[in-house]
Amino acid sequence: MSDLLLWLEKVLLTLNVTNSMEQKNGFTRLAFSNEEKMAHEQFRKLANDLQLKAWQDEVGNQWALWEVDSKAPTIGIGSHLDTVIEGGGYDGVAGIACALGAIRELKRKKIKPKKNIAVLCFISEESARFGVSTIGSKTIIGDVDKQKWEKITDANNITIRQAMENYGIDWETFENAYCEDEKFESFIELHIEQGRQLEKRQKKIGIVQGISTPIRLKVTAIGEANHSGTTLMNERKDALVAISPLIQWISKEAIKRNEQSNHLFVATVSTVNVYPNAMNVIPGKVEFGIDIRSTDDELKKDFVHQMKSYCKKIEEQSQVEILIDVLVNEESVLLDRQIQDQLAQTCEKLRIPYLMMNSGAGHDVMNMAKRWPAGLIFIPSVNGISHHPKEYTPLSYLETGVHVLTTFLENEVRSSSL
Amino acid sequence: MSDLLLWLEKVLLTLNVTNSMEQKNGFTRLAFSNEEKMAHEQFRKLANDLQLKAWQDEVGNQWALWEVDSKAPTIGIGSHLDTVIEGGGYDGVAGIACALGAIRELKRKKIKPKKNIAVLCFISEESARFGVSTIGSKTIIGDVDKQKWEKITDANNITIRQAMENYGIDWETFENAYCEDEKFESFIELHIEQGRQLEKRQKKIGIVQGISTPIRLKVTAIGEANHSGTTLMNERKDALVAISPLIQWISKEAIKRNEQSNHLFVATVSTVNVYPNAMNVIPGKVEFGIDIRSTDDELKKDFVHQMKSYCKKIEEQSQVEILIDVLVNEESVLLDRQIQDQLAQTCEKLRIPYLMMNSGAGHDVMNMAKRWPAGLIFIPSVNGISHHPKEYTPLSYLETGVHVLTTFLENEVRSSSL
Repeated sequence: MSDLLLWLEKVLLTLNVTNSMEQKNGFTRLAFSNEEKMAHEQFRKLANDLQLKAWQDEVGNQWALWEVDSKAPTIGIGSHLDTVIEGGGYDGVAGIACALGAIRELKRKKIKPKKNIAVLCFISEESARFGVSTIGSKTIIGDVDKQKWEKITDANNITIRQAMENYGIDWETFENAYCEDEKFESFIELHIEQGRQLEKRQKKIGIVQGISTPIRLKVTAIGEANHSGTTLMNERKDALVAISPLIQWISKEAIKRNEQSNHLFVATVSTVNVYPNAMNVIPGKVEFGIDIRSTDDELKKDFVHQMKSYCKKIEEQSQVEILIDVLVNEESVLLDRQIQDQLAQTCEKLRIPYLMMNSGAGHDVMNMAKRWPAGLIFIPSVNGISHHPKEYTPLSYLETGVHVLTTFLENEVRSSSL
Repeated sequence: MSDLLLWLEKVLLTLNVTNSMEQKNGFTRLAFSNEEKMAHEQFRKLANDLQLKAWQDEVGNQWALWEVDSKAPTIGIGSHLDTVIEGGGYDGVAGIACALGAIRELKRKKIKPKKNIAVLCFISEESARFGVSTIGSKTIIGDVDKQKWEKITDANNITIRQAMENYGIDWETFENAYCEDEKFESFIELHIEQGRQLEKRQKKIGIVQGISTPIRLKVTAIGEANHSGTTLMNERKDALVAISPLIQWISKEAIKRNEQSNHLFVATVSTVNVYPNAMNVIPGKVEFGIDIRSTDDELKKDFVHQMKSYCKKIEEQSQVEILIDVLVNEESVLLDRQIQDQLAQTCEKLRIPYLMMNSGAGHDVMNMAKRWPAGLIFIPSVNGISHHPKEYTPLSYLETGVHVLTTFLENEVRSSSL
């Protein structure tokens, strides 16, 4: 193994606070948990080893700065260390390892950057604990809703506020982690793909053009619960029978959208709750959670519009009332075109097969992109498996990521834009 | 109000241990709960008031005997006092009130019976707590599975054994409540209909010919959970999309069966559990609970057979694996033809409009019918609502029930069959 591979292996284990990446139950480092804190402490140690200036900001993000001139512009790179419940050890960790690896490579090559480079380890990217994602990067761009966050609780009824305070964050001042425009010149995240597109096309690097953020809906069908033995078929207002054709409609229409458009489109009935969900009672109420994604916002909106018409039809034909709530409606994020081109040129220079693609999942970079020119690099996930103990990305793929990131940065920091 | 109506009103309140039948959250008297015990104690008091010999048997059933001759045959009448969670105050209680009311009427009329009459208040008829129904009547007919019952737990992880022991029942000997054949000559239950058939046809009494016991199935579809944003539509093994057409199939085919047969047929997908049921994950596993009922067992079996073929087709077309477990498969119960005729003659004599019908719900009488000639009388449920705080049957309907039961018994006990 090369020196870089050995170093990456060590860093992966260190950041995961483990002796082995193979864990039957994967890794669980929820937002603002002690486990996340331990991983962040490891990050600070690694940053110190690389002679970076490391500190924690007001919301709990870790910063590791290679400062060459306090007046020079700063290029940000980074990702996150938290995970879902029983998630994988690569997810955001691979991005942090590659970011630190790139710094190490630049130093090894004795590059003298004309810009500062800041490695950011965002706190609490995953929505697994509170249903709120990317808390660290949202705070940096000023997208904080304290009133709302104060009320949101986890499965143990702990609010975000309580979790932050237990973590040592001051609830009154955490939003001071906000960064002014001049803080960054640009921001680059590297992350595992969490899909199969690179693997299927045998590419080593994905250059992300857009992030297809979701529209999330709750569709509630209200019928009438009644005894499943004594209520004749023609006397029923079965909410499940009425609403179930929507599952087929969504799947078929989503497939159709992919045939009609160049933009990838996915739509999923991902949650179902039936009430009272008892063996001898006809479903009186059914709730569907629906997740709709595309980088083409018009496509998403049109889909929701047509879905509403379809639900109207169901309502007319079935005596069942249908309510549609919009839980999330985020505009898609398009990443910086120039950075995409520079990343593509980097791959060509290094002769690394790459793919211009979109991301179906959200990442911290989607917040950063709202304020600064931003880019997202994917490395492959084996079998597309993610958020799962079987999540895996070979070290050699991380090494490729480090090479792309290093060469890109080398080019970026060569000239000062001052 | 007549004297009988006033008495019935008082008895309903007494058995429900309440001052008012209108309760926002209905009545909750689960199997072997303290609430069930309190209702049983009220029953014993009422039995004593009527000069009946009252006792509790080994499993907790209450008996109230009008013994005229220990060697004479005994006619059993009765129902149960337990309820579902937030159920109604009529359910089995109406039957107990009418049974006691009939004894009171016979005594008021100074009838000298030539047979004994036993009012039975069965313990733990509802399956709401343990998923096991009619524990009292099952024990009387010897249909006890101690090994199985010992392992079954309620929502608080209390086993049937623990619940029985807390109630004061001896687990080692409770099956001694078993009754020999000579214990009864016949058994009659009166119960509220829990449906709309009587109301729709403006009948006051239902004479039940058969009880359509359920076949209950668990259908499990196994696909593959994956990220709902990064997994393209054509890469999915969505268990919900694959299995959901079964909901429509079951509803449509059940309706068809009613058109093709004289026997009523109902089939319901009543429970749905999706795994992991998370907004950003494609359903990897889906479980349906299916409840199928008819008095025509062949119709049920044929339905299940065709449903299996349909699932096979789904499996072939979808890459999703489908498993079918039979949870319950009970033979339908046909009630005694002669008793039906006698009840019909009684209604005709009293000029009470009646309906020969089937029961979609199970009752204690379905166990008793396996050992003794048995009959089931229904009185209407307003709007067919049952197992619900809005469950309601007017006192005048109970009064009609008492008259039918009294006249039937009067005729039965007139001559000794010894």
